[in-house]
Amino acid sequence: MTTKEIKAFGTETAEAPLKPLHIQRRNVTPHDVEIEILFCGICHSDLHTARNEWHGSVYPVVPGHEIVGRIARVGDHVSKFKVGDLAAVGCMVDSCRECESCKEGLEQYCEEGNIQTYNSPDKHLNTQTYGGYSESIVVDEHFVLRVPENLDLAATAPLLCAGITTYSPLRHWNVGPGKKVGIVGIGGLGHMGVKLAKAMGAHVVVITTSASKTEDAKRLGAHEVILSSDAEQMSQHASSLHFILDCVSASHDINAYLSLLKRDGTLALVGAPEHPLPVAAFSLIPFRKNFAGSTIGSINETQEMLDFCAKHDITADIELIDIHEVNNAYERLLKGDVHYRFVIDMASLKN
Amino acid sequence: MTTKEIKAFGTETAEAPLKPLHIQRRNVTPHDVEIEILFCGICHSDLHTARNEWHGSVYPVVPGHEIVGRIARVGDHVSKFKVGDLAAVGCMVDSCRECESCKEGLEQYCEEGNIQTYNSPDKHLNTQTYGGYSESIVVDEHFVLRVPENLDLAATAPLLCAGITTYSPLRHWNVGPGKKVGIVGIGGLGHMGVKLAKAMGAHVVVITTSASKTEDAKRLGAHEVILSSDAEQMSQHASSLHFILDCVSASHDINAYLSLLKRDGTLALVGAPEHPLPVAAFSLIPFRKNFAGSTIGSINETQEMLDFCAKHDITADIELIDIHEVNNAYERLLKGDVHYRFVIDMASLKN
Repeated sequence: MTTKEIKAFGTETAEAPLKPLHIQRRNVTPHDVEIEILFCGICHSDLHTARNEWHGSVYPVVPGHEIVGRIARVGDHVSKFKVGDLAAVGCMVDSCRECESCKEGLEQYCEEGNIQTYNSPDKHLNTQTYGGYSESIVVDEHFVLRVPENLDLAATAPLLCAGITTYSPLRHWNVGPGKKVGIVGIGGLGHMGVKLAKAMGAHVVVITTSASKTEDAKRLGAHEVILSSDAEQMSQHASSLHFILDCVSASHDINAYLSLLKRDGTLALVGAPEHPLPVAAFSLIPFRKNFAGSTIGSINETQEMLDFCAKHDITADIELIDIHEVNNAYERLLKGDVHYRFVIDMASLKN
Repeated sequence: MTTKEIKAFGTETAEAPLKPLHIQRRNVTPHDVEIEILFCGICHSDLHTARNEWHGSVYPVVPGHEIVGRIARVGDHVSKFKVGDLAAVGCMVDSCRECESCKEGLEQYCEEGNIQTYNSPDKHLNTQTYGGYSESIVVDEHFVLRVPENLDLAATAPLLCAGITTYSPLRHWNVGPGKKVGIVGIGGLGHMGVKLAKAMGAHVVVITTSASKTEDAKRLGAHEVILSSDAEQMSQHASSLHFILDCVSASHDINAYLSLLKRDGTLALVGAPEHPLPVAAFSLIPFRKNFAGSTIGSINETQEMLDFCAKHDITADIELIDIHEVNNAYERLLKGDVHYRFVIDMASLKN
């Protein structure tokens, strides 16, 4: 298999800051497209992987799975794209395609484990996969999304992870008109959850630990805001929500949020706290409540989400940075100092 | 409201053993039936309440919510029963009848809290409710079940709590042909879960901590038995079950059981461990799994369960005792020394 060397930005150890690197990309095979990367969002997973916080990193790590760009080259059998088209790649670049989940079109739940955009074993080269902090990426067209022309391209990048991670559970648990939906944690994921749930026609209730986020939650589209530290507000809203999307990655009292659910309601966790969350039996049993998890979405659902966002004019709230600001952005991310997603202008990698 | 005094068996304090007592029952009002109690099962909740282990007991406590008997008297407007009919009462004797849950026929999830058969505020008398360790009980006919004639009456009593508590979640989560169902904890509830899931046509897998229960699990109907202490067996069955019914009331590692679920599977807790169960985010997120709870079942569903049991000739495995053996039975219950439910022959109360 022939390859070509390209510029990227990543790290060779868990301790070092990210820096310019060179990596190999395969030349397109018959079903591949090569995408010139224009923008790449920064997800908290990028930082976890760069710093080996999930203990599975293989170096060098080149993060980035919120990728938008333009098709630069297509393989002989590519039918979905032509050179010059806008295109996007999210968290997956391949899967086994043979298991029950893949056959049902739910590649995100591939039983063999899908091939993630970075830090997964590459199916073609004898390396791990490298993500979107790079000039270009080569991906099988099945795992590439079409990008609507009417959205701001930079602000579209975060839809590929933060967008689909919140869109998929909102759809799976039937959020829509007549439903009251809670969104916990207003960050990269949560702010998308508010916009999407509102556009789906639900009554959106933001639950936040921080009074300072009230105004912003309303600006994003929340109909109501509950301050979770206020026991009276929490008890006023007890048993009132059909569904809760929990976007918090830190330890938190899940029982307090479960108390807000109606009978048969579900709280779906999309943030991934490091330590197990203690769940009281009596938070679930008396009203047949559900505590669930969800991860990203399928390729078909990601396309559906992009088209939904195009129709409702939804993108992420972003702060656009140059690639050389990534290490500083990581530090600010750790402090929650971003409204609500950093996106890298990949033109800056060429300099 | 007129009342009459009857014999019962209960306790006036958390510390004392149960003993003969006298209590008042109302005379039947237009929609009530009076049931002469023939058999009453012993549920672990009886012991928790007698000993105030859930901290809400009002004394005297007269436990018992697995009641079968014969109609002795009917109110003027009773249409469902006539004197001499077999009848049964489970965990509820009333509910608000006006909330969303009650209107949907899900009285067990009454938003006001249903009126439990014992230790709930009585709607008619200025006392708490008194349960089935007594000569007779007076209940609104809506909360009384018809008892099929073909079942052993004593062994039918436990269906009213252990039976419906397992039947309802098995039905709610669509257990049936083509589904693999795990049952955790083979006791009063679990042994009913095995029998019911098998009769529903599912492939039944018992998961137990105790190798000594393997044979009995198979006798009850299990197709397979997994020893949860054997890491290799657990890993062989990873991601294999559509649904798990968790009947364990002690602390246990819920993440180990969640690992046995397929994508989109649900583990429903019906046992009620005292301490919160730590749940790892990664037990739920990667395959969109659900951790849920469930409590008893509605009146309609309880009737459906009794009719299902009649059709499939299912009753509980019981040990029949005299009322004077109740205190000893409680001690044996604490040691798990019963296969699988004590039932009191209430004729012994008359002596």
